[in-house]
Amino acid sequence: MNRLLLLEPEEQQRRVKRVTDAMATCGVHTALIADNASVYYLTGRVFSGYVRIDADGRVTCAVNRPVELEGREVVYIRKPEELIQATGPFPVASALEADTLSYSSYVRLSKAIGCQNPLNASAIMRMARSVKTQEELKLIKESGVRQEQVYRRVPKLYRPGMTDLELQIEIERASRLEGCLGQFRISGDSMELFMGNIIAGDNADAPSPYDFAMGGAGVNPSLPVGADGTEIKPGMTVMVDVNGNYTGYMTDMTRVFSLGTISDIAVKAHECSCRIHRQLAMMGTPGTEAKALYERALEIATEYGLEHLFMGHRQHAKFIGHGVGIEINELPVIAPRSRDIIAAGQVIALEPKFVIPGIGAVGIENTYYVTPEGKWECLTNAPEEIIGL
Amino acid sequence: MNRLLLLEPEEQQRRVKRVTDAMATCGVHTALIADNASVYYLTGRVFSGYVRIDADGRVTCAVNRPVELEGREVVYIRKPEELIQATGPFPVASALEADTLSYSSYVRLSKAIGCQNPLNASAIMRMARSVKTQEELKLIKESGVRQEQVYRRVPKLYRPGMTDLELQIEIERASRLEGCLGQFRISGDSMELFMGNIIAGDNADAPSPYDFAMGGAGVNPSLPVGADGTEIKPGMTVMVDVNGNYTGYMTDMTRVFSLGTISDIAVKAHECSCRIHRQLAMMGTPGTEAKALYERALEIATEYGLEHLFMGHRQHAKFIGHGVGIEINELPVIAPRSRDIIAAGQVIALEPKFVIPGIGAVGIENTYYVTPEGKWECLTNAPEEIIGL
Repeated sequence: MNRLLLLEPEEQQRRVKRVTDAMATCGVHTALIADNASVYYLTGRVFSGYVRIDADGRVTCAVNRPVELEGREVVYIRKPEELIQATGPFPVASALEADTLSYSSYVRLSKAIGCQNPLNASAIMRMARSVKTQEELKLIKESGVRQEQVYRRVPKLYRPGMTDLELQIEIERASRLEGCLGQFRISGDSMELFMGNIIAGDNADAPSPYDFAMGGAGVNPSLPVGADGTEIKPGMTVMVDVNGNYTGYMTDMTRVFSLGTISDIAVKAHECSCRIHRQLAMMGTPGTEAKALYERALEIATEYGLEHLFMGHRQHAKFIGHGVGIEINELPVIAPRSRDIIAAGQVIALEPKFVIPGIGAVGIENTYYVTPEGKWECLTNAPEEIIGL
Repeated sequence: MNRLLLLEPEEQQRRVKRVTDAMATCGVHTALIADNASVYYLTGRVFSGYVRIDADGRVTCAVNRPVELEGREVVYIRKPEELIQATGPFPVASALEADTLSYSSYVRLSKAIGCQNPLNASAIMRMARSVKTQEELKLIKESGVRQEQVYRRVPKLYRPGMTDLELQIEIERASRLEGCLGQFRISGDSMELFMGNIIAGDNADAPSPYDFAMGGAGVNPSLPVGADGTEIKPGMTVMVDVNGNYTGYMTDMTRVFSLGTISDIAVKAHECSCRIHRQLAMMGTPGTEAKALYERALEIATEYGLEHLFMGHRQHAKFIGHGVGIEINELPVIAPRSRDIIAAGQVIALEPKFVIPGIGAVGIENTYYVTPEGKWECLTNAPEEIIGL
């Protein structure tokens, strides 16, 4: 028997309760979920179709594909117009995922469920997914351990004369052999990235269209981000920020490698990044405003006289951290205008980074779990210093 | 100087003319384009922002990121609410991309441009992009040549005792070293895939939620498609269908490898696939209905007594081919209910495939260019027979 629901019943109920609590906060009686990331959150698998959550905690899975899934909560439908017949009428206060469904799909779906002004289920799912269960944390921790294994191997993967891209390809292979699933789940209409970002030398200063912490020109204008084929040379740093999705739940980690001796300012900026990590991890107890963390980080960078190189040089990123889980950009957002509040159970990647012209990018990224006691526990434990290749 | 427009002026005009012709057909006076694939089509690069196309062929690029792009058609904006001020008022008959913008982005954008009932720019861009220019064809052909090089190397990448996933990782690395960009652009709300699909033995019969020709269970329920860790054993086929994006424009190719002797029915089904290719390539002259190609393919499969294994066994795909270009699923769609018509200049991947229980998947996929003379020219020329590992 091929059961649709792959979560243990208690875990299933915990997640549904997080969603129904968020629904109650938003005055939503029924939420209809189609986005792969949220379908996976609610059922433990991705399928094509819809998960209907009612306020009383009832879960109904309306499946289009694959065939042969079983369970008393499963109904098969060929198209959204069968939803009412298959799952019952929808209340006026129903919600659809306004931030991930295309306009066309959203309009068709709202007609199909007979709801003229649906509320926004994307906001509900973001809220629910921002605080992790112990089961989710276990999968995130496992990704962290495996990602760390790969990062420790980076110096052995380097061969003299390599370009950033050649090194990236070996790191990709090492990651895949370690179990990396490759798929890089990210939300946002225009966000895309392959296996991650490796930037060497001045390519760190090439501005990118994407909303990542660092840029890079890429090797083709159809995907202008990351490694650009720069040969790794003495005096350069190589920043490695590659895919940590080993379990369906990701960790996000960045480390810096270097060839030969690098300048004092690069070393100092890297120390500044590590200092920001230590300070923010102490200061970010539950209840702290996310924007206060951003402000403190900027303050520390300014104390070091490095604010003009902080989060970029020619172009600056507008955040220093973000929630991580099934997707790489969950809540909270650590940014100057964020209204998010740090809470126990969140998993947060911090990435205070600097671009040093003529040298490259420095700074580290770690993923932290905010424990019930309010401490930040680091889940990405590769060595933090700049490591020689 | 970092010019935004990377296309030669004549090529630029050719593409814009294709779009304004499609706009005229749909009664659209101004189209506002944000989708990465279409932004790349119109400018030769991806940026964050909007391309505005007016009926007279005027192009305006409203850029948010990256910084420092130049050209007389470039204006910088911080948010969509600045579009009217930056690019002028929008006519009533304006169009937005209803099939790729999220509902939230679409609503915000339609308010920002003061347009109550925008028309659908997605349909316009699909129509324009379905017939390729010579410049686009050149990039597709280059992808075909490089993809062929990788496919020819597959037997050398195999080592006894390998799993499907281990072989896939070596093919991924070989592809990347050959210049594969990795990114797999695909349209559709819930479509996702990493570097492609390798399926060995009975994993071919595992139904997948995704709308691909073949399934596979994958190694994790968060991405249930493709290789599942099956050890490649004698009597099995291994179907290789991996990423052909080397230039921003893709080719799509599938080949079959085998270990030891495989059963007669698998060999016969593979021959049937090759026969379908030859027949459809002859029959598909401009003006042919796409659905007639599907029907003919099914007819041939039925003549071979193989219709129950055609395009799947436990679950069946509902198409046998699709347009290819910047994205893997462009127009035309070769499916029973398609209303598309074959036209000169289209680039079409055909993938009549069979699942043979106990053995695996067989059948080939080629990408063809429909020449101005109406012939189908094959762009993916690796050997078509089943090749021993």
